[in-house]
Amino acid sequence: MSDTAINLRDKLSRFAEHWSPRVVAEMNDYQFKLAKLQGEFVWHSHADTDEVFIVLEGEMTLEFRDKCVPMTAGEMYVVPKGVEHRPVAREECSVMLVEPRGVVNTGEAGGGYTAPNDVWV
Amino acid sequence: MSDTAINLRDKLSRFAEHWSPRVVAEMNDYQFKLAKLQGEFVWHSHADTDEVFIVLEGEMTLEFRDKCVPMTAGEMYVVPKGVEHRPVAREECSVMLVEPRGVVNTGEAGGGYTAPNDVWV
Repeated sequence: MSDTAINLRDKLSRFAEHWSPRVVAEMNDYQFKLAKLQGEFVWHSHADTDEVFIVLEGEMTLEFRDKCVPMTAGEMYVVPKGVEHRPVAREECSVMLVEPRGVVNTGEAGGGYTAPNDVWV
Repeated sequence: MSDTAINLRDKLSRFAEHWSPRVVAEMNDYQFKLAKLQGEFVWHSHADTDEVFIVLEGEMTLEFRDKCVPMTAGEMYVVPKGVEHRPVAREECSVMLVEPRGVVNTGEAGGGYTAPNDVWV
């Protein structure tokens, strides 16, 4: 058990890559990840799990096939399992993701945006 | 699926009670809860689950039997399952808790601080 809390701003300062989630904490078999987003991600879904987005800095849009949900710092959204979605951020946006250990960022889609999993910062 | 994100500041403005967690979202079988803390909570533990604290506003201390972890807005901590802890906040502090659905705020301890479970805001 750590003697200190996890400072999210400090953790964000330690990496610069976009679309490359970094794990900062585990709770049971779930992971809390930080990610920096800029541009348009790939359409994808996660067949086996919901996925939580919490915006920490900046703003983004969660695009779904039938709607767009704008999000700004201090807002969260739960993407239901199996639902296609695409995060889009005009300028850099920092988010926290919460999902089970082992979830890949591009879900079932794969492709060039697929990041290494379980990378801690 | 909602057309809008969950705004945490707006949700916090909708209740005033201390030590009375309100659910704002569910992901799989986990819940995201907001709580306002002030004063000293009861010592307790959760035998079956870790528990995440994320400080949204203000500051608090997570007391353990062998140490104290100070926390301020933008910091998080994972309390391991089975470990006795006590949140303490000199002035009002707002936090997000993440834990499986059904977890009672006082864990195994019970007593007057025990809040109704699964109350949404």
